[in-house]
Amino acid sequence: MSKVGFQGERGAYSEIACLKYFGSNIEPRGYKTFGEVFKAVKDAEVDYGVLPLENSTTGSISENYDFLLKYSFYIVGEIFLKIKHCLMTFNSKLKLKDIKRVYSHPQALDQCRKFLEENKLEPVSTFDTAGSVKIIKKNGDKEDGAIIASELVSKIYNLKILKKNIGPRMNITRFIVISKNEYLKSKEREMKTSVVFKTKHKPGALVNSLLGFKENRINLTKIESRPIKNRPWEYFFYLDFEGSRNDETVKRALQKLKEHSSFLKIIGSYPTG
Amino acid sequence: MSKVGFQGERGAYSEIACLKYFGSNIEPRGYKTFGEVFKAVKDAEVDYGVLPLENSTTGSISENYDFLLKYSFYIVGEIFLKIKHCLMTFNSKLKLKDIKRVYSHPQALDQCRKFLEENKLEPVSTFDTAGSVKIIKKNGDKEDGAIIASELVSKIYNLKILKKNIGPRMNITRFIVISKNEYLKSKEREMKTSVVFKTKHKPGALVNSLLGFKENRINLTKIESRPIKNRPWEYFFYLDFEGSRNDETVKRALQKLKEHSSFLKIIGSYPTG
Repeated sequence: MSKVGFQGERGAYSEIACLKYFGSNIEPRGYKTFGEVFKAVKDAEVDYGVLPLENSTTGSISENYDFLLKYSFYIVGEIFLKIKHCLMTFNSKLKLKDIKRVYSHPQALDQCRKFLEENKLEPVSTFDTAGSVKIIKKNGDKEDGAIIASELVSKIYNLKILKKNIGPRMNITRFIVISKNEYLKSKEREMKTSVVFKTKHKPGALVNSLLGFKENRINLTKIESRPIKNRPWEYFFYLDFEGSRNDETVKRALQKLKEHSSFLKIIGSYPTG
Repeated sequence: MSKVGFQGERGAYSEIACLKYFGSNIEPRGYKTFGEVFKAVKDAEVDYGVLPLENSTTGSISENYDFLLKYSFYIVGEIFLKIKHCLMTFNSKLKLKDIKRVYSHPQALDQCRKFLEENKLEPVSTFDTAGSVKIIKKNGDKEDGAIIASELVSKIYNLKILKKNIGPRMNITRFIVISKNEYLKSKEREMKTSVVFKTKHKPGALVNSLLGFKENRINLTKIESRPIKNRPWEYFFYLDFEGSRNDETVKRALQKLKEHSSFLKIIGSYPTG
């Protein structure tokens, strides 16, 4: 049975992403921070790590891009998960109007801000959406307190859902699956490749790096520049494109990219999510 | 005296960015949300809006990119601000060891998480860093509560700073100044231009769009793709580059960009921050 690391406690959206990708026949392990998930993969405590990389409302999660660069792991899969925030409580007799305080992770509270303000609920931040359950239990705040979390949390801890979908309508997070080993299965369906590269700050550097993709008719699906700390005018570019590194066209495009960049790292080829 | 809108209450980092850019001879006006700042510029309630666009730790603030696209305003300036979180309290007799609860905006609490955990402080989220002052006053939590905010907040509300720089060492936010009118002053120093454009999802589309920048030897300083809602495989690209739209080289590059894109909007040329 594969061991899969994620950030958060049982029921976190990251765990839902794990289950969506691997099915239920895994051993999920929650870690406190993204950094600890990467370290657990390094130390072989887990076989895979599942991490959020971008969200449709809040954008890229830069911290995980930085970790991808620091560690030499591969992306072996991706999951697109619709984030559905629910309001839930321990006391099954409570109604929405009885609730005064709402516990959750700062980002979840922020995403549900409109709902909280409309219902005059006081937000109280905790470090993990699912971990709020522990806090509310510890504080004995079961009478008029509620939490915002996933539906999975309500099932694990036996909480009553007061209202579903209290966050933004379009709220999708893209998770990646990382591993020490490359994705090796034969090409079954559409593949995608992620790379990071560096160019010098000179006119045309980026365009030259990308010319090979144009010549080989490869679709780019994401590009993002990130300044390099303490190196003004130098950038890392994170690039996703269609195809596998084993395709002849991709090999040619990457060869050209290599010639025009001062650094190139292939983070992995994996089935499109 | 110019009226300048920002998100937050008096002393918010956005207000510090206003003062850094305009000096103290302005009338700063705080709004509850980014959307309200854009609306205030539209309704001519303020002459300028100052908004965060990207942070070195958390990445781009997608919401403001979306608003830039929705409204037809111009970027007329940019400010790079180092975010320095301080822990402060009302009761000047309190020491760090007396503090139990800490109030602040979720993102500030998240950025200071290490400090909070090391000092066993309970985080309590509020919607505005500076607004925490009001909450702590209202809740009468002055005995063992503290807040995380800017040094400016401590001066405005007469709070005692218990510890400075409790957040990440490298924490820089890039703010932009928006206006209904374009930046028109003659070119005094280094200029930068921001545009947003759309390409069809076909191989080489992005490269073709950027070729004019290479040919005219123009440095790109930022590129980011953003998927378009409900339009799979179509993207907006946000691009920053060196130079002014009045430069002949930039005019030629933009002409070429226009030919190869299905949508192009010049968000403004402005002095580099």
